Amino acid sequence: MNSVINFGAGPAMLPASILQEVQQELLDWKGLGISILEVGHRTPHYQQLMHQTEQAFRTELSIPDDYHVLFLGGAARTQFSMIPLNFLTQTQKAAYLITGIWSSIAFTEACKVKHAYCVASGEASHFTKVPTREQWQIHPETPYFFYTPNETVNGVRIASVPDVGSIPIMADMTSCLLSEPIDVSRFELIFAGAQKNIANAGLCIVIIKNRLLDSIQDACIPSMLDYRVHVSNQSLYATPPTFNCYIAAKMLDWVKQQGGVKRLYELNCKKASMLYDYIDNSQHYLCKVEPSVRSLVNVCFHLREVKYENAFINESEKAGLIALRGHRVAGGLRASLYNAMPMEGVSRLIQFMDDFAREHCL
Amino acid sequence: MNSVINFGAGPAMLPASILQEVQQELLDWKGLGISILEVGHRTPHYQQLMHQTEQAFRTELSIPDDYHVLFLGGAARTQFSMIPLNFLTQTQKAAYLITGIWSSIAFTEACKVKHAYCVASGEASHFTKVPTREQWQIHPETPYFFYTPNETVNGVRIASVPDVGSIPIMADMTSCLLSEPIDVSRFELIFAGAQKNIANAGLCIVIIKNRLLDSIQDACIPSMLDYRVHVSNQSLYATPPTFNCYIAAKMLDWVKQQGGVKRLYELNCKKASMLYDYIDNSQHYLCKVEPSVRSLVNVCFHLREVKYENAFINESEKAGLIALRGHRVAGGLRASLYNAMPMEGVSRLIQFMDDFAREHCL
Repeated sequence: MNSVINFGAGPAMLPASILQEVQQELLDWKGLGISILEVGHRTPHYQQLMHQTEQAFRTELSIPDDYHVLFLGGAARTQFSMIPLNFLTQTQKAAYLITGIWSSIAFTEACKVKHAYCVASGEASHFTKVPTREQWQIHPETPYFFYTPNETVNGVRIASVPDVGSIPIMADMTSCLLSEPIDVSRFELIFAGAQKNIANAGLCIVIIKNRLLDSIQDACIPSMLDYRVHVSNQSLYATPPTFNCYIAAKMLDWVKQQGGVKRLYELNCKKASMLYDYIDNSQHYLCKVEPSVRSLVNVCFHLREVKYENAFINESEKAGLIALRGHRVAGGLRASLYNAMPMEGVSRLIQFMDDFAREHCL
Repeated sequence: MNSVINFGAGPAMLPASILQEVQQELLDWKGLGISILEVGHRTPHYQQLMHQTEQAFRTELSIPDDYHVLFLGGAARTQFSMIPLNFLTQTQKAAYLITGIWSSIAFTEACKVKHAYCVASGEASHFTKVPTREQWQIHPETPYFFYTPNETVNGVRIASVPDVGSIPIMADMTSCLLSEPIDVSRFELIFAGAQKNIANAGLCIVIIKNRLLDSIQDACIPSMLDYRVHVSNQSLYATPPTFNCYIAAKMLDWVKQQGGVKRLYELNCKKASMLYDYIDNSQHYLCKVEPSVRSLVNVCFHLREVKYENAFINESEKAGLIALRGHRVAGGLRASLYNAMPMEGVSRLIQFMDDFAREHCL
């Protein structure tokens, strides 16, 4: 059997070379005689690892000096509460652009803990379209604008940073950080769960502009949800997810070896085009998302004859192509093509799709 | 050189057999052809792992059926906010017993997000004593009583569950869960960071009585801090720290193989006695904590001649006995003897302490 290709949306596949390295050094990290799983977070070796990892992030994404980089334990979902709790007063309303499930959840959470309004929503199109900039309603006194550049569940992407004037922009880049070049200086805050492009599940990266911290006023924010606390403790307020950070360090090295984010972006464009082109030219598959807003990394598609969906999943798994079922909320099929996905994985998927269609006489 | 023995307080040492297993199966988990680091949290194999792990916890700790067991991402420190946010109204005050750094931090956080009062504090004794039950001031209308059965930094233990009448008891068992038998039914809520006895850092276990959920009233609790959300989503509201849960599964198996918590408790008692006895009978070392409240798992001690402390740390590291420096807040020396610490580790430490004293003509 061919090796298994994992199209899961996250926890996602990791580069084979990283897994091999981890395996090799699992019993003895850096000659310390203990496993990385046992290393204390305040030891010099671990501190050095984190310093290097932060520097690698800064270099790879050209993060300006007036931004902090945080490595926080747990899921990115906590950010949905942290952002409004830290950056809204009781009377302010933040602006949320809703382009899929994740921005929708972020908006709901902001409304729960503070106040927010919807700038525009793609829901009427079942998130296959993004309302054009002209359709957005943005109030002038808005304290921040939040959006999700890549919607993992719906396969929707906003490729360029929206023009919202002088309103600070905050973005959930969970499924696209490191997949494509970004201009960090256009954002006040960026966050990303690690389980797509950065590490295994259990770590969240936050890139936050220094001056933003001065605007936090609420003294009753739970400490673990207070950005100031994490910044002033250099991400060590609580015991960090040390192993995930170690994987992130390896991932940043790997990104560099591959030629950096810019080179990976070119490859990601190629991988995505190959698959979308095949789908668009096929009589058996279709992608409902409007071409101009299609995700680079989460290709959501359908069989034109939906009744074959379970057979598709079963047979693809047998062929070693796993986790192709769409998110339970969105249905259909989905192939996630993060940085670690080799070109060969996409070719094999296309070949399988072709074989499947032929075999079932679609 | 002898193998390295890690006395770190957490992230702490893991059983060698677990590390070997992890290494062996790192590239291919359960024949899936992918690493556990890449496995989706909603896949049948992962779901089965979590089901088994929860059952193992239930069996090992005799957790009654009307308790939920949660596996949450991130650090235990989040619980310091979650407990008051979930279980206090704006006018209620919870009772906190302060016996060391961690209960002190928990109290401060409760005061930050809601209201709390201090039942009694060992601070005047520099946390070498615990105020006797007669000295505690508990108000009759108290919604819950919080304490820390084992204080990791100060090496203080409260061995039996305090009698506080009908007031619900909540406990931070980060450094003692699975080290000793407990009667879960005496508590309404127990939590524990994983990085001592359960797994690598990045996971928190919560054991919570079902009826407690009905008492939660605040509708504005951030969703990630709302116990109801995690219970109703069976710990999958956000992407869980899958790898840590996998390690926890192995640890529960290991605990069972060792003869269960009861047997490990006997061994822990032996390990601690050996070390405390040596210290108490020594002219060179001392333990300032009152014998009746000494920790079973975090033995805090000092050199009588403090000037030798750095030499002690340097030479112990050279001898393969690492992470013996006390917490930066408490100073001194500390040997953490969690379940994974073999008896031989304690013998080697005692031998080293003896050699060190002799060599430096103390």
